[in-house]
Amino acid sequence: MRQRRAANVLVEVLQEWHVDRVFICPGSTEAAALDALSEAGIALHLTTHESVAVAMADGHSRATGRPSVVYLHANVGLSNGLAHLWAARLARSPVVVLNGLKASGVQSREGFTTAPHVRSMVTDQVKWDWETLSADLVGEDLTRALGRAVQEPAGPTWLGLRQDLMETLTQCSVPPARRYAGVAGTRPARQAVQEAAAVLRAAERPLLVAGTEVARQRATRQLIELSDRLRAPVVLEDRRGLERVGFPTEHLHCAGLYTPTAPVVRDADAIFFAGCNAFVQFEDVGIDQVPAGVPVIHSHPDPDHLNRVYGADIALAGDQELVLRDVLDAVSDGSPPSGPREPRTTAAVSPAQIRRAALAGLEGRNPITATAAVATLTDLAGPDVTIVNDSTTAASLVLGMISVQTPDQYLATSSGSLGWGMGAALGFQLARPDRRVVAVLGDGVFQFGINALWTAAYYAVPVTYVVLNNQSFAANGAAIQRYRRATGRDADRPMPGVDISGTDVAAAARAFGVESVRIRELSELGPALEDMAAVAAPSLIEVMTDPADLGPAPF
Amino acid sequence: MRQRRAANVLVEVLQEWHVDRVFICPGSTEAAALDALSEAGIALHLTTHESVAVAMADGHSRATGRPSVVYLHANVGLSNGLAHLWAARLARSPVVVLNGLKASGVQSREGFTTAPHVRSMVTDQVKWDWETLSADLVGEDLTRALGRAVQEPAGPTWLGLRQDLMETLTQCSVPPARRYAGVAGTRPARQAVQEAAAVLRAAERPLLVAGTEVARQRATRQLIELSDRLRAPVVLEDRRGLERVGFPTEHLHCAGLYTPTAPVVRDADAIFFAGCNAFVQFEDVGIDQVPAGVPVIHSHPDPDHLNRVYGADIALAGDQELVLRDVLDAVSDGSPPSGPREPRTTAAVSPAQIRRAALAGLEGRNPITATAAVATLTDLAGPDVTIVNDSTTAASLVLGMISVQTPDQYLATSSGSLGWGMGAALGFQLARPDRRVVAVLGDGVFQFGINALWTAAYYAVPVTYVVLNNQSFAANGAAIQRYRRATGRDADRPMPGVDISGTDVAAAARAFGVESVRIRELSELGPALEDMAAVAAPSLIEVMTDPADLGPAPF
Repeated sequence: MRQRRAANVLVEVLQEWHVDRVFICPGSTEAAALDALSEAGIALHLTTHESVAVAMADGHSRATGRPSVVYLHANVGLSNGLAHLWAARLARSPVVVLNGLKASGVQSREGFTTAPHVRSMVTDQVKWDWETLSADLVGEDLTRALGRAVQEPAGPTWLGLRQDLMETLTQCSVPPARRYAGVAGTRPARQAVQEAAAVLRAAERPLLVAGTEVARQRATRQLIELSDRLRAPVVLEDRRGLERVGFPTEHLHCAGLYTPTAPVVRDADAIFFAGCNAFVQFEDVGIDQVPAGVPVIHSHPDPDHLNRVYGADIALAGDQELVLRDVLDAVSDGSPPSGPREPRTTAAVSPAQIRRAALAGLEGRNPITATAAVATLTDLAGPDVTIVNDSTTAASLVLGMISVQTPDQYLATSSGSLGWGMGAALGFQLARPDRRVVAVLGDGVFQFGINALWTAAYYAVPVTYVVLNNQSFAANGAAIQRYRRATGRDADRPMPGVDISGTDVAAAARAFGVESVRIRELSELGPALEDMAAVAAPSLIEVMTDPADLGPAPF
Repeated sequence: MRQRRAANVLVEVLQEWHVDRVFICPGSTEAAALDALSEAGIALHLTTHESVAVAMADGHSRATGRPSVVYLHANVGLSNGLAHLWAARLARSPVVVLNGLKASGVQSREGFTTAPHVRSMVTDQVKWDWETLSADLVGEDLTRALGRAVQEPAGPTWLGLRQDLMETLTQCSVPPARRYAGVAGTRPARQAVQEAAAVLRAAERPLLVAGTEVARQRATRQLIELSDRLRAPVVLEDRRGLERVGFPTEHLHCAGLYTPTAPVVRDADAIFFAGCNAFVQFEDVGIDQVPAGVPVIHSHPDPDHLNRVYGADIALAGDQELVLRDVLDAVSDGSPPSGPREPRTTAAVSPAQIRRAALAGLEGRNPITATAAVATLTDLAGPDVTIVNDSTTAASLVLGMISVQTPDQYLATSSGSLGWGMGAALGFQLARPDRRVVAVLGDGVFQFGINALWTAAYYAVPVTYVVLNNQSFAANGAAIQRYRRATGRDADRPMPGVDISGTDVAAAARAFGVESVRIRELSELGPALEDMAAVAAPSLIEVMTDPADLGPAPF
């Protein structure tokens, strides 16, 4: 191979993998890479805070299913990027974090922006981490970082790249991408599949639970077929672990969200948690949240994820499309496929019915409630709209009221990392210019994620941010109330950590060059959404909601 | 002891240590602590991003020399707080990070906002970390966290507090604070002190280097006496490691900043690096930056810090006031103290002279240069003003031009963590209402630290932010130019990662309720500073500077 600097090898590897954009928040350490990337015409999306770059890469990967690359600066840049890296990890997004590190000698001497144990910071957030040891290995190592990220179970990876190595000449070759991205999807053993099919066939009232991984691995069609075949109701997985919607919410068989107390769950005599992150517990509710004595089947792409919380009688690891196809075949056993029919139990009301019920008679009420705003918004969101839900106390409202046909209509994070949605919406929108992306945010979330506005405006990314401004960290208020009630403490003292009034969110957006409007009447929301749809740049709608309204199901 | 919940024990320990405020960014996990703290009347300073809380605690500790307590939420909150925790670590600020963690069962099941290795994230940023194992140990453990933080060499500590433990009843007692904060300062062995004194006395041209730790440990008076006694010039330590100024810059003996090429350094025949972080290297410049063959004395409170980079012939570990007093005594050897006299080499020009030279003839020039803005600002800053310097490419200008009499007039970080100054200024101001605090920021820094504006406004903290807006990440531009020149690459291609234009900084501040003004003429800066001095709340001055002016000494 011809001689060139390792920074240019990095470009060659990205080109080999058809990575045509990189999300960056660089410092001086990354000069060689910046120069090489820009020279090669790879799009560089600059951010003014690393959290934005990471969330953008996550959103981008969620849209494409392909690796997204983010380039961070030294120990401090990595620190700033960590919070939303939790989101990428939980979503199994193949986000490749390249981390510019100081030159070898500066590291030896614990100089500026170095850390002796920099990799220890990402122990839990990535599935693989490595620091390149030689300029000759940059090509190989980056190939591995990309390959490991996309290999199922997919997830973020981290690669440390020292400044001196990146500026060093090398003749190393670039490995072929197909050799490192070609691991075949896996299927469970036939015996286990047949056992699962037998359990489902024998059940009078089987219940299917549509998990995030069904959506991510594009196995929704198989789940629909299985539901039709079994005439089984389907619920979406528990909202704490739900990041994508794996089953059409307006389908006749869809019966809302998994809740241990719901009749459709309580009455089931077999439950199949298909691709579910069962469960992401919020509180310590023990390990008995699955009906006792009912056979449980659980499928997931990550074997380590199975049996993590509630166990399963039959645990099926593998690619969700292959797993569901196998189960479907075993259940069908040669008989012709059936179409959707009334399921064996009565389905719950649909999201469309829920939001219309919520809206009935609310029109003139003031101040606007979160329920009314979310019902209005979700009612207007057609199939070409992607809702990014990062709204804490209003999140369950959004999830309960949105009609979702395909996995690309809804995104959320189960990480609890506030502000994620502001960057994730940008990354998703860049990958999917054909869709309208609307991010629903709390005002606390806005405060955390405000740094994204600069990137949104600079690159004219046409997302619409809808900020439900109740001027509160409402989740804190709910938690304090709960604690006071549980311990018999004075419930009437003022609550600390709740009031965050004082910010004119719409004005802040304008200061960044983002078109915005503040509304106080529910009737203004529809027209505002329509107006903003015409803006070929980011926009923001600040909806002033009732601070006293903590929403129906606080985090 | 009477029975109460562990959260209330936490309050008792803080009261025992006279900690009367806590910097918070809570989630639901911290409900019990929030309730107990607010009930006890401990001031809670809410932030809308953890980075702000950590930087405030750091600034607060720098003002008081005492422990400051910050309470963060779960793994995601800790992640957000990490970047500025590097700053606290390098400043040896006794910042105690309390980290609310999910309840035991939720952690076992890897539930919401948990991380199996949460402590690995803070390996390098704190000097001690522990996760409390029982409600009965909360009092002891918090006492240790406070005690270890203030014990020299001081630094941040981290204590994990699980939700279920904090809500549990306990009869544990509260240890007396004095038992855990009473470690006597240490002094070096007499033999080493006498050797140091002999070297200094024998030298014809001894040079003293005033380090950050001299300022932090309040040993400036001793250093002045030593300088007077030896008639030795004093330089401030290399700017990369300088966080506080340990010697009065207008003193006759002060000769600017340590630079290997400066005559005062080159000509020295003995160098005493007193309390210096010698050195925080930015680039790999080898280990020969100290004049060859010249005897080197180095004192520092942290034994592990000595000999880290350049080695020392005589290394003195201990409290800087005690060390310098010992050296002074040994140098004096009973003879009466001398006063300041012309040092044996000619001192450099003073900061006052530097800024006046910079200002001569600049008045009408447009656009405003960073040099002109900084010269104007530093010329107006009297001894009652504290300058918080977080201005990247302009940082060396500020340091070179400011006249500093006491360590409380100047604060900076050597961490490279952008945005730190916006929170640190708030914490320092809260601790020192008698001083006027002015934070000098770059516009990139403003983008990183903008989240601080909410807290500034909500609590009406009367800091003045001065944002030098060159609409650039100028340091990136300088680094790319340097790389292109060094490698013979095309210097004229557009530079990626530099342009961050588009934000109306003053308007963004107003959106948060912070009074602000944007200026384009140098003559407006003085009046603006005067106007803002009258505001009993935060204020911001946006100074539009020349994007083409990268400053004289880019990072």
